[in-house]
Amino acid sequence: MTKILYAVPGIGLDKQELSRRMNILNSFATPPNIVVVEAVEQGPESIECFYDEYISIPNTLRLIAKAEREGYDAAIIGCFGDPGIEAAREIASIPIIGPGETSLLFAATLGHKFSILTVLKNVFPTLEKIADGLGVSKKIASMKEVGLRVLELSSDIERTKKRLLEIGREAVEEDDADALILGCMSEAFLRLDKELEKELRVPVVNPVAVSVKMAEALVAMQLTHSKKAYSLPHPVEL
Amino acid sequence: MTKILYAVPGIGLDKQELSRRMNILNSFATPPNIVVVEAVEQGPESIECFYDEYISIPNTLRLIAKAEREGYDAAIIGCFGDPGIEAAREIASIPIIGPGETSLLFAATLGHKFSILTVLKNVFPTLEKIADGLGVSKKIASMKEVGLRVLELSSDIERTKKRLLEIGREAVEEDDADALILGCMSEAFLRLDKELEKELRVPVVNPVAVSVKMAEALVAMQLTHSKKAYSLPHPVEL
Amino acid sequence: MTKILYAVPGIGLDKQELSRRMNILNSFATPPNIVVVEAVEQGPESIECFYDEYISIPNTLRLIAKAEREGYDAAIIGCFGDPGIEAAREIASIPIIGPGETSLLFAATLGHKFSILTVLKNVFPTLEKIADGLGVSKKIASMKEVGLRVLELSSDIERTKKRLLEIGREAVEEDDADALILGCMSEAFLRLDKELEKELRVPVVNPVAVSVKMAEALVAMQLTHSKKAYSLPHPVEL
Amino acid sequence: MTKILYAVPGIGLDKQELSRRMNILNSFATPPNIVVVEAVEQGPESIECFYDEYISIPNTLRLIAKAEREGYDAAIIGCFGDPGIEAAREIASIPIIGPGETSLLFAATLGHKFSILTVLKNVFPTLEKIADGLGVSKKIASMKEVGLRVLELSSDIERTKKRLLEIGREAVEEDDADALILGCMSEAFLRLDKELEKELRVPVVNPVAVSVKMAEALVAMQLTHSKKAYSLPHPVEL
Amino acid sequence: MTKILYAVPGIGLDKQELSRRMNILNSFATPPNIVVVEAVEQGPESIECFYDEYISIPNTLRLIAKAEREGYDAAIIGCFGDPGIEAAREIASIPIIGPGETSLLFAATLGHKFSILTVLKNVFPTLEKIADGLGVSKKIASMKEVGLRVLELSSDIERTKKRLLEIGREAVEEDDADALILGCMSEAFLRLDKELEKELRVPVVNPVAVSVKMAEALVAMQLTHSKKAYSLPHPVEL
Amino acid sequence: MTKILYAVPGIGLDKQELSRRMNILNSFATPPNIVVVEAVEQGPESIECFYDEYISIPNTLRLIAKAEREGYDAAIIGCFGDPGIEAAREIASIPIIGPGETSLLFAATLGHKFSILTVLKNVFPTLEKIADGLGVSKKIASMKEVGLRVLELSSDIERTKKRLLEIGREAVEEDDADALILGCMSEAFLRLDKELEKELRVPVVNPVAVSVKMAEALVAMQLTHSKKAYSLPHPVEL
Repeated sequence: MTKILYAVPGIGLDKQELSRRMNILNSFATPPNIVVVEAVEQGPESIECFYDEYISIPNTLRLIAKAEREGYDAAIIGCFGDPGIEAAREIASIPIIGPGETSLLFAATLGHKFSILTVLKNVFPTLEKIADGLGVSKKIASMKEVGLRVLELSSDIERTKKRLLEIGREAVEEDDADALILGCMSEAFLRLDKELEKELRVPVVNPVAVSVKMAEALVAMQLTHSKKAYSLPHPVEL
Repeated sequence: MTKILYAVPGIGLDKQELSRRMNILNSFATPPNIVVVEAVEQGPESIECFYDEYISIPNTLRLIAKAEREGYDAAIIGCFGDPGIEAAREIASIPIIGPGETSLLFAATLGHKFSILTVLKNVFPTLEKIADGLGVSKKIASMKEVGLRVLELSSDIERTKKRLLEIGREAVEEDDADALILGCMSEAFLRLDKELEKELRVPVVNPVAVSVKMAEALVAMQLTHSKKAYSLPHPVEL
Repeated sequence: MTKILYAVPGIGLDKQELSRRMNILNSFATPPNIVVVEAVEQGPESIECFYDEYISIPNTLRLIAKAEREGYDAAIIGCFGDPGIEAAREIASIPIIGPGETSLLFAATLGHKFSILTVLKNVFPTLEKIADGLGVSKKIASMKEVGLRVLELSSDIERTKKRLLEIGREAVEEDDADALILGCMSEAFLRLDKELEKELRVPVVNPVAVSVKMAEALVAMQLTHSKKAYSLPHPVEL
Repeated sequence: MTKILYAVPGIGLDKQELSRRMNILNSFATPPNIVVVEAVEQGPESIECFYDEYISIPNTLRLIAKAEREGYDAAIIGCFGDPGIEAAREIASIPIIGPGETSLLFAATLGHKFSILTVLKNVFPTLEKIADGLGVSKKIASMKEVGLRVLELSSDIERTKKRLLEIGREAVEEDDADALILGCMSEAFLRLDKELEKELRVPVVNPVAVSVKMAEALVAMQLTHSKKAYSLPHPVEL
Repeated sequence: MTKILYAVPGIGLDKQELSRRMNILNSFATPPNIVVVEAVEQGPESIECFYDEYISIPNTLRLIAKAEREGYDAAIIGCFGDPGIEAAREIASIPIIGPGETSLLFAATLGHKFSILTVLKNVFPTLEKIADGLGVSKKIASMKEVGLRVLELSSDIERTKKRLLEIGREAVEEDDADALILGCMSEAFLRLDKELEKELRVPVVNPVAVSVKMAEALVAMQLTHSKKAYSLPHPVEL
Repeated sequence: MTKILYAVPGIGLDKQELSRRMNILNSFATPPNIVVVEAVEQGPESIECFYDEYISIPNTLRLIAKAEREGYDAAIIGCFGDPGIEAAREIASIPIIGPGETSLLFAATLGHKFSILTVLKNVFPTLEKIADGLGVSKKIASMKEVGLRVLELSSDIERTKKRLLEIGREAVEEDDADALILGCMSEAFLRLDKELEKELRVPVVNPVAVSVKMAEALVAMQLTHSKKAYSLPHPVEL
């Protein structure tokens, strides 16, 4: 049995929503593997800019360090921007999954060019940094924004869906994308990916799903990130 | 249950070896998923240059078309160079997994730079083409050759292992690789990856393992390559 | 006297058309040099996708191997996608000319950015692969499709010409191309390049012409592709 | 008069050292401009890995927000890795100077290729990320490590100097660097740059100096970073 | 006191205009530093194409050589295309400032992507070459032309301003630029940058200002371009 | 009959040497085509740095303008650095051939990576600029210098040959070049290319030969550089 932490770096989700997300995460896991959701106690409401990202990192690192001590086999950073992922890999030896990174890698294999449908333009530079780090920038057809703040996405799901269809269609028809990525976890947990796929007729990568699959795969293969790449020059207490 | 074809594009392996490989492939599958190995009836002995690649493709495509008709859920092209992968994706709707492509994507997430340990220099340009297609060329620390022909790899496993350790160490120490890829299926089926990992202290990506995991993951998520990216402008008979 | 093979990888052209094309090819040759056209006996009707490309290669390689045995000085692969060119260079020592590669190199020297006017979007990824291999991708202003299947191009030449003017004008006016390439041999053999040039006032590269000129030039300079780059690790029979 | 904050993100420096650094900073300022040094109260000893970087950011942001409220005209992030610079630019309107970014830009104009001499290999990926962000990666001849931890640099200055000369010479002679950057503030505050220049006969960029000059220049020209690029989608309290 | 030459490579400006420009240049200098304007005696009227650039270089080099002999501390090449800058750095040891190069470096630090507003499309390739040399091409959102010849810019300043606002707005709204550069010295000397900034709400880099600031900074830090990068293999008389 | 000018931008060659070179140039031309050599009357001895390049351009442009007026069909700039080629294309309508550009394009088609064997390190940046302009930088395995000044190359041909073999061998064995370019016209006119080829067993591109062939080919195809790319905004007298 593989036990995976899904670390939520913000405080804007209530218990019910956290539990709803845990169910969805586990719907992607292959039994008897399980995913446990845990949120930081202090941090930003949600992550919509560099400031939010950086503020969220120290507490998320603590969650991850604790998870490793408690025997978790892998951890997913619960934000598409993968905030602090390199530091998490420095302090931990279990595989640390970034949903952004993982989504870009899966999308890279599904077609020639993909578009990322995210919440707000503010996070475009973060997404570009992830793509640059992996080298896959040339596979990006475009980045598009829903134009809603993270916590508004679920307040009117029909509006969100309509907007995703709109920008998804632009990506496919105008920007020549042949695959799409839902570029925000709160978008992804609305589970609109299969509807978008049906409507737009291109594969839609759900970062929730690919993160769980990547965690399971790495653990099954006993692979983890390189400690040569992510080493700590001094001990830390977390 | 997911049923995966592993299509061997060459004729150089006898029944016993094909069966040994099938066992290894299935050791990476999560039950009840299964992998079935099938080889072409005509083709090159093994694949060591562009000529071998191209000659192997038409028959491999036939294997894959048949597999889809027979209800397989996914197919793996049994050569690290992913020969004919785009055409396979044009003629099929099930996910087509390229071990080269998949290994590069997994390695890209494990560290900053990786090296590929392959058989002969002749295949370097093919590997570069795969990396270029995905965009991950900048993550390649180096490509190294064992310097043995494919079918010699298993005739003296100790020699192969010694040579892999040698070039793996050069990659890590001189070229700053922090992860390694076994860049040839016949290398990978020797299952030396975990020994190399222990010795060289960096993660070693086994293309057999990641291909099975990628196939399982895509099927589980009901994701397949984009038919917008890989469409056929006319019907074909295979 | 230089004797050049023009190897047609598909079976869709009748004798009359093959003979018409041979005349055009020879109109670009400097006497007493000659170009001989030969088509495969089995293969795709025409080449409009990866599947067609790969299926056409084995027989085209046989044509080329035979030509070298018979004393030809150079061979041109008769498809803009240069299918199998690396393998042809492995099995042969005479210069192997790819019309796609050659056209991109000539266009690169004529201006700052060029556009490629080809038949169908399906071949865009092949063209990108050629450009990537040479490094000239940054010189591409755009790729445009006529939107007709290869064998339809000549059925209504006025329609084809109108369409080429249309997309050529878009390339020049909207995409800032300052040179154009006819990105399909069947387009090129319509000999519309000089009319397009006059109308659009930018140079138009005809792949038929540049291929003949490149073949003649390499033979005259006694230059051929590098056997270090394109070697065969084992003997083949063709 | 321009008033510049130099924000120290770590707690490893005592008052005397902070005051020594303030003197050096002011030696680069054009009177009557002044630079004030302030350190965070909590944070890492020094910054030698991603973990240190991320942990240091929230408190550094508070220092900078306070400085802007108190009327400072510009702020320099006191670490070569420019930790949190994008967030600082989101929360502030005064120019925020990153010594890493600024050094790379100055070095880019001094020659064809430069090398960065930093403390430990662990920070190479951070430096690559800065270079990637600016686009100047192709100007990097090499990155070299002194191989000492940050706080050891000043404990034996002769050793540090000898080591800098050693790796500087390698960079110039083996890697074809024609300019050098001192890639760590603690190195830079040893003021060995002019000695290195004399010995190695290539320009040596001191990040302390260029940061002060950049701050003064931006303030003089009434230029600051783009709020379109660095906007905050919601108010924050710091 | 730092004494800076501003070398005008063309002959199209009368004494009054040269004197007006000298005043503006000095308004950016920090007293007691001074900038002296000197124009070539023979050369093109203004610089609007490669031909003009190349024709202007020999005489500009003479101006710069003379300035160094006369004790100047730095020289600015008075054209945004930085014509002959590498040769100037070969023949001189004082810092040689290129307004184009310097503007691109400053703009690179102000936001994610910038646009260059220049006079005529003809100079786009020169600007691309400067960006390529520095590596910052990926930061360019777009290049836009005013569409007026250099000497027409000042004949109807309202028209020029209107046109700059127009193309600046397009750059910001359509091309996602978050900073702008005035890409022509004659534009820059109209001093419209602060008005554009106010209107378009993004920073506008004035090449006149940044060149003076760069010259002052390099002299203050006793830094100059690398003689390893820019050496002369033989003596010259100028 | 095609009449080609070979414009020598320096004054260091006596009549005998110019005539020897004319013979070699014509040995590459296909009769009845002819190449005429003409040298500038004033200019640098030879071209070994940016200074030499820029100083040589105005007079070379005059030679080319005159040739066009006199009915020449094409012109070759007689220096591997292609000095002033963009301006020559602005003032002329006949094809202007750059030996550097042309050699890089031919080499790009002969193998995977090539090395350039030139005279002095000083010209490396010029060669990089040419490669960057065409986009083929990624095809460069290395640049090597003979380490002799241009006019010394022919004073001791055995020494030059030995040195070319030495650096050619390094390029092939250490840098993985599979083709070579003689990166200097004075090297090329020694006609050592076929000896080097025999010894090193990789193709060697001779810039003299490829320039003549390119000129002949463009004229035969009635192709010339794009006037959209190289236009003049005003009339010039030359």
